[in-house]
Amino acid sequence: MSEATGSLPLESRGKEEGRLACPLRIAIFGFGTVGSSVAKILVESHPPELELTHVFNRGVERKRVSWAPAGVVWSEDADAVLNSDVDVIVELAGGLDPAASWVRRALETGKSVVTANKKLIAYQGVELERLAAAKDGHLKYGAAVAGGIPVIPGLEQGLAGDRIARIEGILNGTCNFILSNMDEGAEYSDVLKQAQAKGYAEADPTEDVGGFDARAKLAILMRLAMRVIVDPEEIVPQPITGVTAVDFSYAHDLGCTIRQIARAERTNGEVAATVGPMLVDLKSPLAWSRGTENMVILNGRYGGDVVFSGHGAGGHPTAVAVVSDLLALAHGSRRVEIPSAPARVGGEFEVPHYIRFLVRDRPGIVAEITGALAAERINIRAIVQKSGYPADALPFVVTVEPCRSSAMERALARMRSMECLIVNPLELQMLE
Amino acid sequence: MSEATGSLPLESRGKEEGRLACPLRIAIFGFGTVGSSVAKILVESHPPELELTHVFNRGVERKRVSWAPAGVVWSEDADAVLNSDVDVIVELAGGLDPAASWVRRALETGKSVVTANKKLIAYQGVELERLAAAKDGHLKYGAAVAGGIPVIPGLEQGLAGDRIARIEGILNGTCNFILSNMDEGAEYSDVLKQAQAKGYAEADPTEDVGGFDARAKLAILMRLAMRVIVDPEEIVPQPITGVTAVDFSYAHDLGCTIRQIARAERTNGEVAATVGPMLVDLKSPLAWSRGTENMVILNGRYGGDVVFSGHGAGGHPTAVAVVSDLLALAHGSRRVEIPSAPARVGGEFEVPHYIRFLVRDRPGIVAEITGALAAERINIRAIVQKSGYPADALPFVVTVEPCRSSAMERALARMRSMECLIVNPLELQMLE
Repeated sequence: MSEATGSLPLESRGKEEGRLACPLRIAIFGFGTVGSSVAKILVESHPPELELTHVFNRGVERKRVSWAPAGVVWSEDADAVLNSDVDVIVELAGGLDPAASWVRRALETGKSVVTANKKLIAYQGVELERLAAAKDGHLKYGAAVAGGIPVIPGLEQGLAGDRIARIEGILNGTCNFILSNMDEGAEYSDVLKQAQAKGYAEADPTEDVGGFDARAKLAILMRLAMRVIVDPEEIVPQPITGVTAVDFSYAHDLGCTIRQIARAERTNGEVAATVGPMLVDLKSPLAWSRGTENMVILNGRYGGDVVFSGHGAGGHPTAVAVVSDLLALAHGSRRVEIPSAPARVGGEFEVPHYIRFLVRDRPGIVAEITGALAAERINIRAIVQKSGYPADALPFVVTVEPCRSSAMERALARMRSMECLIVNPLELQMLE
Repeated sequence: MSEATGSLPLESRGKEEGRLACPLRIAIFGFGTVGSSVAKILVESHPPELELTHVFNRGVERKRVSWAPAGVVWSEDADAVLNSDVDVIVELAGGLDPAASWVRRALETGKSVVTANKKLIAYQGVELERLAAAKDGHLKYGAAVAGGIPVIPGLEQGLAGDRIARIEGILNGTCNFILSNMDEGAEYSDVLKQAQAKGYAEADPTEDVGGFDARAKLAILMRLAMRVIVDPEEIVPQPITGVTAVDFSYAHDLGCTIRQIARAERTNGEVAATVGPMLVDLKSPLAWSRGTENMVILNGRYGGDVVFSGHGAGGHPTAVAVVSDLLALAHGSRRVEIPSAPARVGGEFEVPHYIRFLVRDRPGIVAEITGALAAERINIRAIVQKSGYPADALPFVVTVEPCRSSAMERALARMRSMECLIVNPLELQMLE
């Protein structure tokens, strides 16, 4: 019982046929889109196990809503709420600071924490879980990866018996919105503006389009699925900004489309992980994702591929994950602790690649490219040049058979020195 | 602690940083494909929380395997194993009898039970859960629906905060194997034989192809997702045996394929549920399932559609779900009890229908059919007749706009009396 009820003495909380007699007292930190959706669900479906008692936000007066229960304390004093008799802090402010200090202080006083903060969990999840365990509290973060899709509960409760060797996922709704719209002919800059207007993308979209958001989520999945604790900074992301309309055109000719993919796998006892735009076979479920949808494919040694998909972001789907975590706490459902150990991201993928060149045409270009690849013993799969482009800005594509990332990187370095290039070649992994 | 450790006195079980000091003692009842896969995973990944101590099977000597731990007791005396000091019974015998009595007796003595038995859970799950709660034991059945796909943990732990209004699923791998192969040109009888040879189908395939297996699973999902306790017998299944090659040909022309679908939804405050072959839009994820794959789509009021897919059957995937349930028990992870209430399956779907006729051609047939539909105020969407079929066994298709199942049933009754029919019309729901 004590795990679920936090700071109150045990005897003040009864239980009856496995249910809590007293509801969990809940404080929401951060009353934005997700926070107000959590409150909305609690008000509309009023589970008897959960009671919203506090809302903390800077300048909280402008956040106050008429439909919230009359007894809710609206506060802009974080300390006062942390020192109150709430059982659970729902942290929805995001980012490392000051969210981390609130979470830490809540856990230190034996309260439990539910959070949607992928950055916090990716960078400090292990030590925060230790702190929670030491103080008989709980830390739950089902909303931190893929929002409303129950990947984290699925991993902890349904796949803990397997050994997951590979993760492939669409973990960032903004990038998927941009790329799936480009897939249908939109221009990057137009669809980015559209995403910003719809609230899918920030004014500065770097966190999303640069791959930083997805790599934090990938690091969390790697710990639960592959049982490795990695430093997210070791996962080098490739931004989606280099992908252009011509790449979708060539990708379609190759029976593929382009999506931002987060992938990780064990290779020769090492761990490889990366995030970036990749060519995805049109027959893969990953190619079916549209709009802000998220998708995760986990490959287990025993269970084979398991696919999860749905709405990875947005107030209501994320709030479902938060409320589900709260219900699990109220029912005393402990996390299944999946053992994990620190690991370096040092392995290499051995996969086929797509390289798109944009050149001023002249004789000898293909010879130089094939020479650079041959020097690294990389086999060419296809050279594709579509007609209809001008000779002074000619795009064409070379695809190569599976090779190590390091060999590809050396070949690319050599090719980047070709003076006919108008832009650096765009190199993308191909998922098979 | 007591929930996880069953019959041993509390003080003999320590815990250290949330882990059990003593492993759970496990007895497997039924050492077939799934049972031996469970043992294999326990041996290969030897989680410290779990210890296989007993295997019960009729004629157990022929089941004995050399790779099992030396200390395992191989028994054909169910009573002796039930009376032993095991903590958890893993029931993998299937069916209601004698599995139900073993499970009941285990729960009555405070042991916990993990089972993959969909029939047992669909028919007796509610009372068995009550018994488990009364005796401080636990009943877990993550493997009972969709094998290795964590739909049940996902529902209990990740979607409990939502309100699921609709379920659509491919819940029977045998039917999906048959229909997805027919989709690519195979004949029903050939592919059934192939399924039997591969061990996907029983010698008597009625349970699968008749829809009885899928309806038991649907009833379980309805309780956890839609929070209604229904009698599985009230879900009337339609067998897949009436579907022929010509139906796939017409379905393709309509931009669809055919899959066995289990579906349930709330309609006007009532609950509608059915299982049978249905037309599925080629753009729906349900159309992408191949072979023995399972898929479940849950539509939540707050979270929208969530899709799960993967290997729904087979020894290893099912064993992953069983071992995951065992790990959850060992970690004291209680089920999130989702409240549910008894309900009748009485609602009607209001969906479009596909009706395929096989007739001896003569003038006036279409007039009779359209007359029968008009009498029930059912609007025709399309009449499709492909060329190349003989006039004395002419297949053609009528599709109709959404109408109530009862109106369709009355129209069909009228059409069945047409003397030009060679077989009864095949009527299929169309999923949109």
